[in-house]
Amino acid sequence: MGIAMQLDLDRRSPTPLHLQIAQQIRLMILQGELAEGSRLPPTRKLAEILGVNRSTVVQAYNKLWAEGLIESHVGRGTVVRRVEAAVEFPVSSLSWETLLATRFEAIESGVRELMKLFAEDEVISFAAGLPASEHYPLEEFTGLFYELLTQQGRLILGRCAVEGHPGLREWIAKELAGGISPNEILILSGSQQGLYLLTQALLEPGDTIVVEAPTYMGALSAFRAVGARLIGVPVDEKGMNVAVLERVLARTRPKFIYTVPTFQNPSGATLSLERRRKVLELAYRYHVPVVEDDPYSLLRYEGEALPSLKVLDAYGYVIHLSTFSKLLFPGLRVGWLAAPKGVIEKLAPLKRVMDLFTNAPGQAVLYEFCRRGLLSCHLEGVREEYRRGRNVMAKALTEQLPKLRWQLPEGGFFIWSRLPRGVSGRALLREATREGVTFLPGEFFFADGQGQEWVRLTFVSQPPELIEEGMRRLARAVRRVMRRKQQEVQEKTAATRPIV
Amino acid sequence: MGIAMQLDLDRRSPTPLHLQIAQQIRLMILQGELAEGSRLPPTRKLAEILGVNRSTVVQAYNKLWAEGLIESHVGRGTVVRRVEAAVEFPVSSLSWETLLATRFEAIESGVRELMKLFAEDEVISFAAGLPASEHYPLEEFTGLFYELLTQQGRLILGRCAVEGHPGLREWIAKELAGGISPNEILILSGSQQGLYLLTQALLEPGDTIVVEAPTYMGALSAFRAVGARLIGVPVDEKGMNVAVLERVLARTRPKFIYTVPTFQNPSGATLSLERRRKVLELAYRYHVPVVEDDPYSLLRYEGEALPSLKVLDAYGYVIHLSTFSKLLFPGLRVGWLAAPKGVIEKLAPLKRVMDLFTNAPGQAVLYEFCRRGLLSCHLEGVREEYRRGRNVMAKALTEQLPKLRWQLPEGGFFIWSRLPRGVSGRALLREATREGVTFLPGEFFFADGQGQEWVRLTFVSQPPELIEEGMRRLARAVRRVMRRKQQEVQEKTAATRPIV
Repeated sequence: MGIAMQLDLDRRSPTPLHLQIAQQIRLMILQGELAEGSRLPPTRKLAEILGVNRSTVVQAYNKLWAEGLIESHVGRGTVVRRVEAAVEFPVSSLSWETLLATRFEAIESGVRELMKLFAEDEVISFAAGLPASEHYPLEEFTGLFYELLTQQGRLILGRCAVEGHPGLREWIAKELAGGISPNEILILSGSQQGLYLLTQALLEPGDTIVVEAPTYMGALSAFRAVGARLIGVPVDEKGMNVAVLERVLARTRPKFIYTVPTFQNPSGATLSLERRRKVLELAYRYHVPVVEDDPYSLLRYEGEALPSLKVLDAYGYVIHLSTFSKLLFPGLRVGWLAAPKGVIEKLAPLKRVMDLFTNAPGQAVLYEFCRRGLLSCHLEGVREEYRRGRNVMAKALTEQLPKLRWQLPEGGFFIWSRLPRGVSGRALLREATREGVTFLPGEFFFADGQGQEWVRLTFVSQPPELIEEGMRRLARAVRRVMRRKQQEVQEKTAATRPIV
Repeated sequence: MGIAMQLDLDRRSPTPLHLQIAQQIRLMILQGELAEGSRLPPTRKLAEILGVNRSTVVQAYNKLWAEGLIESHVGRGTVVRRVEAAVEFPVSSLSWETLLATRFEAIESGVRELMKLFAEDEVISFAAGLPASEHYPLEEFTGLFYELLTQQGRLILGRCAVEGHPGLREWIAKELAGGISPNEILILSGSQQGLYLLTQALLEPGDTIVVEAPTYMGALSAFRAVGARLIGVPVDEKGMNVAVLERVLARTRPKFIYTVPTFQNPSGATLSLERRRKVLELAYRYHVPVVEDDPYSLLRYEGEALPSLKVLDAYGYVIHLSTFSKLLFPGLRVGWLAAPKGVIEKLAPLKRVMDLFTNAPGQAVLYEFCRRGLLSCHLEGVREEYRRGRNVMAKALTEQLPKLRWQLPEGGFFIWSRLPRGVSGRALLREATREGVTFLPGEFFFADGQGQEWVRLTFVSQPPELIEEGMRRLARAVRRVMRRKQQEVQEKTAATRPIV
């Protein structure tokens, strides 16, 4: 038995014997020393020659079989597997299209096209969900960056723990997350990363997620990109419809419920306290985790603050996501996630394989900003500004666009507005872009193509005078679309009238 | 037919009729207006009443069926699906363990334990693959951060395109990627993100990746985390064994070949020019893309530079990954990927769902650093330092640890060294930690548990005098392990000797 002679086992090696056998036979096959179709010794025989247990050889053969290197035939024993004849040649370019994973197609390409509209200079944009750069606390951050780099530059440019900057975790745990332990905080490269991370941690192929209808577009894109099945639960002025949620949970086994309970994106709605309790009760009853996405709750302009689902949760069912992007500016890409310690311990290694850790200077400078009380000062200021923006937009809507239906949000960034019957957000967007104003059409916020008659208007990204001008432009665009619609109907009626 | 009466179709709405029907029936079911088990009208009948095509109703019913809301029974027609009785209550904590996706367990937890060793103060670490912080170009970055924030702070703290900072893309395309178009560059949140991104873009469940054996640990972790099957091709002093690669490609259909061809991590080996050509020829022949991970090629200490696989590739098969983390410092988390334009256009939306975009101040400051020629100055300086580190370590190995087998790398960060027979990296690490020195044991760098007798030693993270002291400690640890090993063998021999 030639092969047995060539095997050189080292009993003092820490590598287990079955791995040594498999490794050596693998190399013989791959280097061509063992020809295709040639027989391997029977396991009993090889075990005898090598002086090992038969199960050791069986383990080695099983490994090689799993790798597709050998196969067994009744009557012929174990042989080196033959491979197909060489594939076609000569060289051609690679067809990347066919290589890309199939689920990949699900990412909303409409969103990409739309992003281009944001870039136009002359356009007043109510589209992006971002604060105006006038409100960035720029001087403070310039000073802090300089100070930190001067004093501890080698530290903050170096490696950081995957869980995040210890000080920042502690500050968030205490000040933003209701006094939990720092071990229950994971710093993220923006809260979008948290959404993707949770799909990777929790979903198996074919799994379902319950979302709100409408809901945050970036969550829909992430969930679609990984091939999740989505079920939408309608949102009204008090947030998610919990009666529908209950029926959905009774009928499906979703992996989690995704909700933006406070000043929801895009609807502006806030889940009432009663419904918050009900959502948790249902989560407990049906053993379904809740992912609470909460970027806006610190931006309340009136009314009383409500406890987060995370704070109300007594049994560790809620994973809470948030970010500094909406409070300060989006460029730093620092968000965070609060969850039971055991969950953080599972998520951290997964984040490590995704991007090692979140950029360290960004975390360090945010920590200093928060620690020195500058965040609360800043929030006091922008709440004033954003409240004014909201009121200016609401007034303009009432005066210039009386046919739109909407509800004044108590905080956040958005007014979600229903267009007059028969006017679609997409048709209006084309007209509006010509007028020099943009917004997001409602259908981007639904899992299933609803929302065609809704639009989302951001009131924090333009100063009051541009909000007013933008709303005048929008009113002109709406009138234009409605006039065209009427003409079409008249023409149709004329065309179907009998010719006398 | 009660249900037909309640349906309110809007023919002027942009929402297709079948979606309107499905939406309204869905709500009736979920809100309990349509009881479980109650019959829906036959499609023909409902179509008649609503005055729509029958196919419209069939589409609506199919949608509801796919959502699990209705079911069809021969003889009974279409009915609202019954759900199981309520699940167990009262409330208990959520068993997150059972919720986590099964592939999740594959992430190397040994790595995490190991990371803790890095933190010890008294320890001389040859473990992490990172430059010493003494070499960070700190003053330049402090100045640039201040200048950029002062001059264009509102821009660089705001949103950035998902593809990356335009100037940085252009600079990399021209200066680092061989003069390709900026459209062929995607900026990443570190090159680790590129690895994960590619698994997401290319892999379907059960797919295979060809890796080098040994290879970069972070790649193995990422590939394992997504459940990929890994096949290792041995590396020798000229890089990947292309004869084995050919046999592997003939036998399997891997989704891509992952290689670190220059100053490989951990082996330090560089793929020869002849083998580079062969790898590409094989990729072309078997239609397999190549992922070239290239963080070290600018850190060459002797010999002539070789063209990257990307530069040699004439048919668009190569995706090239790199990062600034090894050239400057790891904290900024900015890496990049070069690929055909069509591939970038597919990867960018996927990166967007993963983290929206890479932190903007980090990109802006790197661009300025590169544009002003500071990167090449910096590299000149550190090449000197790292060459000295390499030589000091090599000398110490020769003098203090003559039983170790290794090869001098022409660049990069690592000396990959084979321990004396029977000494395992793990056993040595325990001893070494007690002596106050650490490194990475070789098994972390293999897909299949090989490498137990290898260790990776980083020569760029300690100054010369600490390298010397660390090697003396390592030599003591090796002697200690070998002495113990000998004792064990003697005791065994004594124990099995017949008692006379």
